[in-house]
Amino acid sequence: MAGNSFGTLFRITTWGESHGTAVGVTIDGCPPGMAITPEDIQQDLDRRRPGSGGVAGTPRKEPDQVELLSGIFEGRTTGTPLTLVIYNKDAHSKSYDHLKNIFRPGHGDITYLKKYGIRDHRGGGRASARETAARVAAGAVARKYLAAKGITVMAYTIALGGIEAVGRDLAEIRNNSLSCPDSGVAQRMEERIIAVKKEGDTLGGIVEIIATGCPAGLGEPVFDKLDGELARALMSIGAVKGVEIGAGFRVATMLGSENNDPITPGGFVRNNAGGILAGISSGQDIVARVAVKPIPSISKEQNTIDPAGNPVSVKIGGRHDISAIPRILPVCEAMVILTLMDHYLRQQAIGLQVT
Amino acid sequence: MAGNSFGTLFRITTWGESHGTAVGVTIDGCPPGMAITPEDIQQDLDRRRPGSGGVAGTPRKEPDQVELLSGIFEGRTTGTPLTLVIYNKDAHSKSYDHLKNIFRPGHGDITYLKKYGIRDHRGGGRASARETAARVAAGAVARKYLAAKGITVMAYTIALGGIEAVGRDLAEIRNNSLSCPDSGVAQRMEERIIAVKKEGDTLGGIVEIIATGCPAGLGEPVFDKLDGELARALMSIGAVKGVEIGAGFRVATMLGSENNDPITPGGFVRNNAGGILAGISSGQDIVARVAVKPIPSISKEQNTIDPAGNPVSVKIGGRHDISAIPRILPVCEAMVILTLMDHYLRQQAIGLQVT
Amino acid sequence: MAGNSFGTLFRITTWGESHGTAVGVTIDGCPPGMAITPEDIQQDLDRRRPGSGGVAGTPRKEPDQVELLSGIFEGRTTGTPLTLVIYNKDAHSKSYDHLKNIFRPGHGDITYLKKYGIRDHRGGGRASARETAARVAAGAVARKYLAAKGITVMAYTIALGGIEAVGRDLAEIRNNSLSCPDSGVAQRMEERIIAVKKEGDTLGGIVEIIATGCPAGLGEPVFDKLDGELARALMSIGAVKGVEIGAGFRVATMLGSENNDPITPGGFVRNNAGGILAGISSGQDIVARVAVKPIPSISKEQNTIDPAGNPVSVKIGGRHDISAIPRILPVCEAMVILTLMDHYLRQQAIGLQVT
Amino acid sequence: MAGNSFGTLFRITTWGESHGTAVGVTIDGCPPGMAITPEDIQQDLDRRRPGSGGVAGTPRKEPDQVELLSGIFEGRTTGTPLTLVIYNKDAHSKSYDHLKNIFRPGHGDITYLKKYGIRDHRGGGRASARETAARVAAGAVARKYLAAKGITVMAYTIALGGIEAVGRDLAEIRNNSLSCPDSGVAQRMEERIIAVKKEGDTLGGIVEIIATGCPAGLGEPVFDKLDGELARALMSIGAVKGVEIGAGFRVATMLGSENNDPITPGGFVRNNAGGILAGISSGQDIVARVAVKPIPSISKEQNTIDPAGNPVSVKIGGRHDISAIPRILPVCEAMVILTLMDHYLRQQAIGLQVT
Repeated sequence: MAGNSFGTLFRITTWGESHGTAVGVTIDGCPPGMAITPEDIQQDLDRRRPGSGGVAGTPRKEPDQVELLSGIFEGRTTGTPLTLVIYNKDAHSKSYDHLKNIFRPGHGDITYLKKYGIRDHRGGGRASARETAARVAAGAVARKYLAAKGITVMAYTIALGGIEAVGRDLAEIRNNSLSCPDSGVAQRMEERIIAVKKEGDTLGGIVEIIATGCPAGLGEPVFDKLDGELARALMSIGAVKGVEIGAGFRVATMLGSENNDPITPGGFVRNNAGGILAGISSGQDIVARVAVKPIPSISKEQNTIDPAGNPVSVKIGGRHDISAIPRILPVCEAMVILTLMDHYLRQQAIGLQVT
Repeated sequence: MAGNSFGTLFRITTWGESHGTAVGVTIDGCPPGMAITPEDIQQDLDRRRPGSGGVAGTPRKEPDQVELLSGIFEGRTTGTPLTLVIYNKDAHSKSYDHLKNIFRPGHGDITYLKKYGIRDHRGGGRASARETAARVAAGAVARKYLAAKGITVMAYTIALGGIEAVGRDLAEIRNNSLSCPDSGVAQRMEERIIAVKKEGDTLGGIVEIIATGCPAGLGEPVFDKLDGELARALMSIGAVKGVEIGAGFRVATMLGSENNDPITPGGFVRNNAGGILAGISSGQDIVARVAVKPIPSISKEQNTIDPAGNPVSVKIGGRHDISAIPRILPVCEAMVILTLMDHYLRQQAIGLQVT
Repeated sequence: MAGNSFGTLFRITTWGESHGTAVGVTIDGCPPGMAITPEDIQQDLDRRRPGSGGVAGTPRKEPDQVELLSGIFEGRTTGTPLTLVIYNKDAHSKSYDHLKNIFRPGHGDITYLKKYGIRDHRGGGRASARETAARVAAGAVARKYLAAKGITVMAYTIALGGIEAVGRDLAEIRNNSLSCPDSGVAQRMEERIIAVKKEGDTLGGIVEIIATGCPAGLGEPVFDKLDGELARALMSIGAVKGVEIGAGFRVATMLGSENNDPITPGGFVRNNAGGILAGISSGQDIVARVAVKPIPSISKEQNTIDPAGNPVSVKIGGRHDISAIPRILPVCEAMVILTLMDHYLRQQAIGLQVT
Repeated sequence: MAGNSFGTLFRITTWGESHGTAVGVTIDGCPPGMAITPEDIQQDLDRRRPGSGGVAGTPRKEPDQVELLSGIFEGRTTGTPLTLVIYNKDAHSKSYDHLKNIFRPGHGDITYLKKYGIRDHRGGGRASARETAARVAAGAVARKYLAAKGITVMAYTIALGGIEAVGRDLAEIRNNSLSCPDSGVAQRMEERIIAVKKEGDTLGGIVEIIATGCPAGLGEPVFDKLDGELARALMSIGAVKGVEIGAGFRVATMLGSENNDPITPGGFVRNNAGGILAGISSGQDIVARVAVKPIPSISKEQNTIDPAGNPVSVKIGGRHDISAIPRILPVCEAMVILTLMDHYLRQQAIGLQVT
């Protein structure tokens, strides 16, 4: 209710601040009997951790080592809550003291203070992207469950700084630091990052997420439609300002005859619907795209105010990424995975076989 | 949990099928002491009812008369559940018999059957847009509460069939049948509708929704961010395939220095954030846009299959709209209103003054 | 959240006031494909309706005819919400006008006004026992689902007005108007009712509820223990002031060696646990008992105050039952059934076979 | 949904096993700006920790030191989740190896295995009473909030091993090891404990909980009635088998004229209702009582089976309490506090002043 939980039957609650003792997540509703090791979780975390962003990333090298505090017995889940924790090590709270009396533009500093009458100013506190480490950890548990059902989720970069991928060779994703399915374009993206970094500015982009192997029947009608749930899940990532499913905003210019996906005995002939009809998965690939805003922490001078309302000018130094891409990719995957996981259990609840 | 409820503290549950006895909504959590009349609700319903779509609409003239079954005593809400019901009158179930054995492309026919093993084929049953009448009715109640707090929500058409509004004169909205803030463009949109109607095809478009007067502090961090909640709310409308907040997908091409909204003692100097920072309202106008797909029921011939998997060809006759716009506008407003209403009560819960 | 919903996966929301247009219930999460007729529901309602209470009952003869407004197609549930409604016919609002300015002792008149600042004084409004008709209607749907799984729930009277049943011959239940498993005692209870009725007073009692055929594994650890859920379900009936499971309050005087139920290869050798261990059903019969307070509406003179705080004296006439027993029995059954139904679906959700 | 969370607006999720790394709790929805120190929490934990049970207790001396991992900044709550953790130190997992293949009578060993197909046999795993340390920690936070509103909650022993308190001098509670309001009786209870301990057996009892200073208006009608919520909260404590409010089971033998609490300009003249009318607090003291079963771990020989269904005989050694009383007292208080806290915030949500 206060916003730190996600999901219903596979329900996660994340907690912890950027510069507090730890960030963590408790998973309630994890099916029993699953084999889970810290390594299963660590490999997703390693894709998100500081320092993993290639040229777009920060030089911080935080290990982000996950520990399992509960819910596992002799290597298997028991049906009781899993708590995963990542202790903060590279905190440097002092380096944030100068931001105590400044509302950084593009950040939640001002809204948190207005909402709560108090705020933890150290690195954004709870509003820091560091919170997403907990989501990725929880997502790794669900990923393993879904993988056993044949469901795979993958995110990749299709635009960055105005440069768009043309090719969609998913095999290329692992061949460049930006997880772009078009390696030639990836190189131009990297050059753009380097150029913008020199100017002290930052870049946005677009991420596409695809879920394959998803059975038909996931999603609940009306308000918990699968596309609505995915939209909320993805929009809950701080940097995301837009979400679209399948043909997305292109539907605004299409005719009904162009947009409808004809059905044949062999299946759908195209996938403008993005794998979801009337909010329920159709068995096709589920396809979503998100607009990622540029990192708001820039070293250029910006106008803002202090909590007393006085004008101040701020340059945000420190070790910040140039783009939330590519570190946002495992976070996008986690949110799609957590959504599918929850709906998979919800479909099981009504007693029909999920196929 | 099964998808027919929306909201937490101001919680609505809609029910009813397109060609059943009635559609209705139960509101649990309506604050007590509000003066509510059927007319308050009827005026929003009248903007959504069949026949209200101007050139884009159907010739059906259903009165969609709302009745209040509970929760009102001597003209005021009592804190107990309100049930609002709209009995179906112009049903024509027979005219849907020929669709019993066809999965209409772009509709949920195939996914409902795969999910539940059974489906009500009459006009889409529960998946029909008729269900949104119940949302609009509930939204009208919340609209009255928010109006007393100074909050106003308005939706209007900014694109249709590839034609985009240039001007944004909100006073123009009431002056054309499409609620377009640019009357010159509205006329071209209407001409496009007439042309496409002759071809038996349908059109999509883009709707913008603006909420003014919203206090800072609404929205819950992390997973129940106001933008995420709005995304789910809007994407839960059947025709919507994309949602964006503020600058939306344009952020993908912007620099951080362009996208950040500087703050001055007099307020923010622009509104790329769409009134939401870190998931919490900032006090600026809240701005969202949705991509509306073309109505999937077209009278052109389409390929599809029957439930046994055999190929069939279908032309969907009957009285269908050419575009979900403009009848979708009050539905978009209702979903934004219901989201804000719920978060308004959530903010009150923690005992801080909402200002 | 505002209290009018029960259950999570099989979630009901009741609405309506004693003297409003109707009382009703919406069920969200009903499994698809179930055959349901109005008669299935009517037979439970008939056991609860006014006039069914034998000597303990009121002379009111309300038909309490249920109508199905949604969720059924060609006689089967479709997975969409069922709305069941009972229109009020025998309302007599006028006869409650004299109670407008009185807080009836033992009723919620004073607390509703303090909570909401407004109250519907006609027959208790939402706080009337009439609301339980909606619960019984919803319970009848769940009863049918559970019956197909071999689960049966039965409530009966074991004490009334200080007279306790000695025998427990469940076959006797249908042979007396109080559903007492000891017909000799039942007769003495009836005589007690007649005597107290003459004095203008009312009686309390104890109801026992037994669920047979319940599989092991229902109930969720820690906070959603099956016994806790049953306690809440039963205590939510207005007249209930105490709930116990298995040996109940007798455990306070027992030794561990007396209270523990030994286990043998053939099963448990006794059932002090009431079929629930650590909050999870064990496969034994589930046994609960509730304390039912005397009907607070008595025709004897009572001291109370009016909303302005002035002392007044009141005699409550009208057509009231002498005891909530036996009409409360189908309500007790409904609450146990709804609890088991919800947990049955919850157990299915984790993907293990419920056996 | 999987049972490890309690509350809606002040929502706690507990996690951890008896012999795992830690037990802990995450609180979501804690109002911001509260001053909280570890000492505030520690003092309640100290009343529950092993070794605090006087003659009824175990000789284990676990410090149960609480640590705050999140949600506090400069000594105050920030509105973000609090995570409180108690690392397990005195685990002795080895000493439970002999119980691996035994279903202890009166414990959840058999039901957990049937539910999940797997169980952590070390000291009951998640079903251990050790989990309640997390509840007490969360309750201590809520206690501080309620105390500032003038609400106090106190639990005390009114029966143990068949010996009942006669006097109700609450000042006596701190003067004996059993927190009994009748010190003379307390001595007899202690003697009974010592005698039973020699026999290797255990004792049950009755705890009464009183909440003073509670405003009128808490509790939600129909299904979330305050008495129902308290019943669930208290019954969720493993040892509790019965709950009653106010006159409780005595209502079964009372006349309506005896049970109704008359109202005068000066207030209610008695409190059979236990401070709750129609599920809503009346402003009187809230009074509940719970039946506490004898500790099921006894050193007497008992018949049971192993997971393969073979008969075995078991004597449970180890360091077990003779009675859950008095260590259960702070747990009972915590559950009442958490219930009131949640409903206090729920009442604030509708925007009326809680007074």
